[in-house]
Parts: sequence; C-alpha cells; structure tokens
Amino acid sequence: MARIAVDLMGSDLGYGELAKAVNQYLNEHADSSFILFGEEDEIKPLFAEADQSRIKIVNTDQVIPMEIKPLDFLRAKDSSMYQAILAVKNGEADAAVSAGSTGGFVAGSTILLRNIPGVTRAGLCTPFPTAVKNKPCIILDVGASNVNTGEDIYGFAKMGKIYAEEITDIKNPGIYTLSNGTEEGKGTDEVVEAYKLLKERNLLGFKGNCEARNALDGKHDVIVTAGFVGNVFLKATEGTAAMMNDMIKVAFKRSLLTKIGYLFANKGFKEMKTKMDYRRFGGAILLGINGVIVKAHGNSNTYAFYNAIRVADSMVKHDIINKIKKEFQQ
Amino acid sequence: MARIAVDLMGSDLGYGELAKAVNQYLNEHADSSFILFGEEDEIKPLFAEADQSRIKIVNTDQVIPMEIKPLDFLRAKDSSMYQAILAVKNGEADAAVSAGSTGGFVAGSTILLRNIPGVTRAGLCTPFPTAVKNKPCIILDVGASNVNTGEDIYGFAKMGKIYAEEITDIKNPGIYTLSNGTEEGKGTDEVVEAYKLLKERNLLGFKGNCEARNALDGKHDVIVTAGFVGNVFLKATEGTAAMMNDMIKVAFKRSLLTKIGYLFANKGFKEMKTKMDYRRFGGAILLGINGVIVKAHGNSNTYAFYNAIRVADSMVKHDIINKIKKEFQQ
Repeated sequence: MARIAVDLMGSDLGYGELAKAVNQYLNEHADSSFILFGEEDEIKPLFAEADQSRIKIVNTDQVIPMEIKPLDFLRAKDSSMYQAILAVKNGEADAAVSAGSTGGFVAGSTILLRNIPGVTRAGLCTPFPTAVKNKPCIILDVGASNVNTGEDIYGFAKMGKIYAEEITDIKNPGIYTLSNGTEEGKGTDEVVEAYKLLKERNLLGFKGNCEARNALDGKHDVIVTAGFVGNVFLKATEGTAAMMNDMIKVAFKRSLLTKIGYLFANKGFKEMKTKMDYRRFGGAILLGINGVIVKAHGNSNTYAFYNAIRVADSMVKHDIINKIKKEFQQ
Repeated sequence: MARIAVDLMGSDLGYGELAKAVNQYLNEHADSSFILFGEEDEIKPLFAEADQSRIKIVNTDQVIPMEIKPLDFLRAKDSSMYQAILAVKNGEADAAVSAGSTGGFVAGSTILLRNIPGVTRAGLCTPFPTAVKNKPCIILDVGASNVNTGEDIYGFAKMGKIYAEEITDIKNPGIYTLSNGTEEGKGTDEVVEAYKLLKERNLLGFKGNCEARNALDGKHDVIVTAGFVGNVFLKATEGTAAMMNDMIKVAFKRSLLTKIGYLFANKGFKEMKTKMDYRRFGGAILLGINGVIVKAHGNSNTYAFYNAIRVADSMVKHDIINKIKKEFQQ
C-alpha cells in the first residue's frame, strides 16, 4: 500500500481539478491511500464519495506563496506543503505531491528530508516529450540548484539512470552530459569534469556530450546538466513550443480556406498535441533526498495531477529511494 | 563604399550559393565592393559577369575545418578564413563574412583583431525570430565564451543595445538579463552581478531579468547571458522548432484528408515559416572586437548569405565599431 501525502493548496486552478485526480486514482488503485492537506471545510465535500478508510483529511489554512525564502518556509509550519513533506519525514506517508511553489517544495523537501548519504546535491528531474511517441527524455537538474560541480552532475547521471530504468521502462538508457559540442573537453569546467568522472568511473550507458539541439530527438534517454542551464533549457523548449502552437493557431485562422484546412488536418494535429503533452509525464521529481517528492505543474488539470500521483506511486512501488541509497553507498 | 572580405570556402553547400549572394549584392548595391577568398580557378567563372572594378579574387587553397584549436588556426595562414580576417586587420576590408567554422572564425577574429579597449569579452550576438513579425530579439553571448563575469555581461548589454538601435531599428530597446526568475537576485552569481551593475550604472533601457520561456515573445529586445547558457538557449530553441516543424509535416501526411487540409492551410503555414526563418537576420555577429565580423550559418543558401552580407554592410555604414569604441571609452 503506497501512502501518498497530497498538498491540495497552491494550485493555480483551486481544489477541484486536484481532488478529481485523487478520487480517480483512489477508485482505480485499491492499493493506494492518501493524506490530504488543505482547508477541511472546502475539501471534505469533494471526497464525500471516496473510500473513507483510504483517505485522511488534515486541516491546514496556510498556503506557501510562489516565491518563498527557505527560512520563511520553515516558519510556515501550518501550511499544506510543509505538512505534506512532514508526513513523509515522520513516516506517515511514502511520498508527497504538490502543485504549489516549486522553489518552496524543493527547498522545504531538501531541508526537512535531507540528502541521501553520498548525494552531494539533489536534482530536479523532468521527463520531456521527444520526437518519438511515448519516449521521454529524462533531464536533470532543471533548477534545484543554480551551480553544480562535476561531482554533482555525475550524481545526477546515476539517479537519472535509475529513474529511467525503473519508472520509464527504458532499458539500458543512454546517458549524456549537456554541452555546446559533442567532443570531449567541450563546455564549462563542471561539464568537462562530469564527463571525466562518468568516463573514469565507467557509468554504464554514458555516451558523451549532447547538444541542446538534439536533446529531444528521442535518441537521448538521460541528459545531465547544472541546474541553471537545465532550467534555461526547460523554459526555452516550453517557450518555443508555446510560440509555435500559437503560430499554428494563427496560420489556421487566417482565412476561410485555412479554417477548412484545419477541419481536414485536425486529427493529425491532435496526435501532435498528444505527443508534445508534457502533462503525461507527471511533472518534476526531486531525486536524491530521503523521500519521494513529485512536483506537479502549477496549472495542473486532473489529467496532469493524476499523472503526478501515478509517478509518485510508481516510485514508491519501485523502491526508488532505497535503490538510490544503494547506488550511493560508499 | 563598404569593402567586404568574403570567405567563400567552408560552407556546407559549396561555392555556388555564396557566389550567387555576392553577385546579387554587387548588382543591387553600387556602393559595395568585395575581396573574395577561395580557389581562384573555381571562383573566377562564378563572377564572370560581375563588375570587375568592385571585386578582387584572392587565391587560397586551405579550408578551416569545423573544429579547430586557436593555435592551429594561427598556423593556417593560407586559409580563406584567416586571409579574410587579415584583410580587415590590414585595413583592406571593413568587414569579414564567413559561413565556415564558428569556433575558428570567433577565435581567429579575436586573436587577429583584438578586443576594443574597455571590452572585457567579445560577445557572439544572434538576432532571433520572435512571435512578432519582423521583430527580432538580440541575444548575446551565444557561445564566444563559456563562462562570463557580471562585467562581461554588462558589456554585452551595452553592445547589444547599440546593435539593436543601429541595425534592427528598435527605438529605446528594452534590455534584460536571462535568468531563472524575474526577481532581482535570481540566477547564478554572474547574472546577479550583471543585474547589479546594469542597475547601478543605470544603463538606459535595462528592465531586469527575463525567463527563457518569455524571451521570444517579441516584448524583449535585447537579452544578455553568459556564453554557455546562451548557446544552450540558441540550440534548444532551434531544436524544438525543428522538431515541431517535422511534427507538422507528419500531421499533414497522416491521411488523404490531412493532405487536403494542407492544401487549404498552405498559405497560413508559409507565413508561419517566414516568421520563424532565422535566415532573414543574417547569422551571428561578433561584437566587441576591432572589426565587423559576421558569421553566416554553415548551410546558408543564397538568401541567408545575402542577409549576412547585408548585416555586415549595414554595420560598416552605421560605423558600429566606432560607436562601440566610444561607449567603452573610460
């Protein structure tokens, strides 16, 4: 039985979509249970029809704002996010899921749960959609840190490999360092150092550098990078995809003819949209700390939040934390 | 009269496309002249109909390979690229244009022409297409360096501002530092430092941080960043755009219906393609050294190379080098 702590506050869309996702997950997975954090008065009616033996509602009335300093987080003990992480720390839950502040969730989880021994830095890991249907590319760190050492990035590679193998079912994942050229020696000092460590310590599957241009071609399974660079990569791809989607809409709205064209081509575009839909992959996962922490997108709808829960559940069932612990044992 | 040195070797597509671009430019601009570097036997026939008083062909038989170390570049004195840069150094030409190795061209230009006094680092500057038609976003550095200090990035802002005002006709450009959040204090140390310098020294038009997600929305005129991050941004947007273009093709080829849809929507997509076409903007410009250096894309067709020449010509006519010199005078 996977016990999942859910922060129901802090989503851009309110309780509704998240509650629907939890209810659906409960119905479909008899081996799951939830501790739900939020305003009890608001939440209770949303779970009236749920199996009450598998849910527990804990009243919290404080929301972590989108931007919060670590010290302020530690003071916000009555917040749904703090309480959800605390439930993992206290052993009441196996995983925590939130659609709230990424910075707050990452900092709070790191402070409360601490790094797994041997892990120099936790990494925020995001599965990206690629040119190949249903084949994500696992990229980390995308923003838990700004600056990372080669040793940190080497650690990201070990954790990304475990995640890819266990959760995305990629057999023998190919692992790459993100750089500005494919040749060894390309990139910043930490990239060069990470490359060296990955090669020397012979991490199975390490194949060298990957340029950002080819990262999402479906041929790269795991890509590791320092957090600031990963964050820019994440947002650059998101921004470009959003811009092109807008342009496609404009292209079709141009005239009556193009509108007719849309009706004909509609199915093809739906398929494209499905392929590009990051919500399938369930948000971002903080790897390297003592607990399963999954951050859903701030504007998660039911589908996206359901997938975030699914990832958290899957990580618990695959015993990811212990597998990372073992990998980092000296 | 702008005198432009052109490295005709090193393009992925051979002499043909580049020669066509030069011929077209000669015909359309009576106030331009060219020194052309490449294999004389091959080149001469391509310019048989050109105004011979405005061209000079210099035989070179060595090509700079795509990957070259600075020391090897300095030894390749007979190469078309070395000679084109040397022509600028010797005062025989006002600008050099090449579609060859970016690394070679940047390193070679920096070594031979040297930084403008006061410039701590030269910046490779690329105009990006944005969501707004005909409105580029000027981003630098995209890869002349890997690591940059806050002072370097501050310098990029000053140079990017001049480029935007003079060459892209953006009045009072808004200038931004690329970061992982809009608030002051976000980002790596050099970003925080650059923000501080831009604010303290009161560079006109500085508006704070910009996230990669919004960089190409058409509302940001100049964005400055350390080179490695800029390079990842450049290639992430290129890669995502290429991936989505492929997906659009697949979407339309899906069935007879979607193919009919394409016929109807064709005009809308052509417009979209024009908007996204980076070739309009003429490649990358190395700002901060004593000479106009324009790097055309390696697979430049006539249209792209023509635009690279147009940018070089425009930079000469706007006296950009002296304007940068003046700006950096202590």
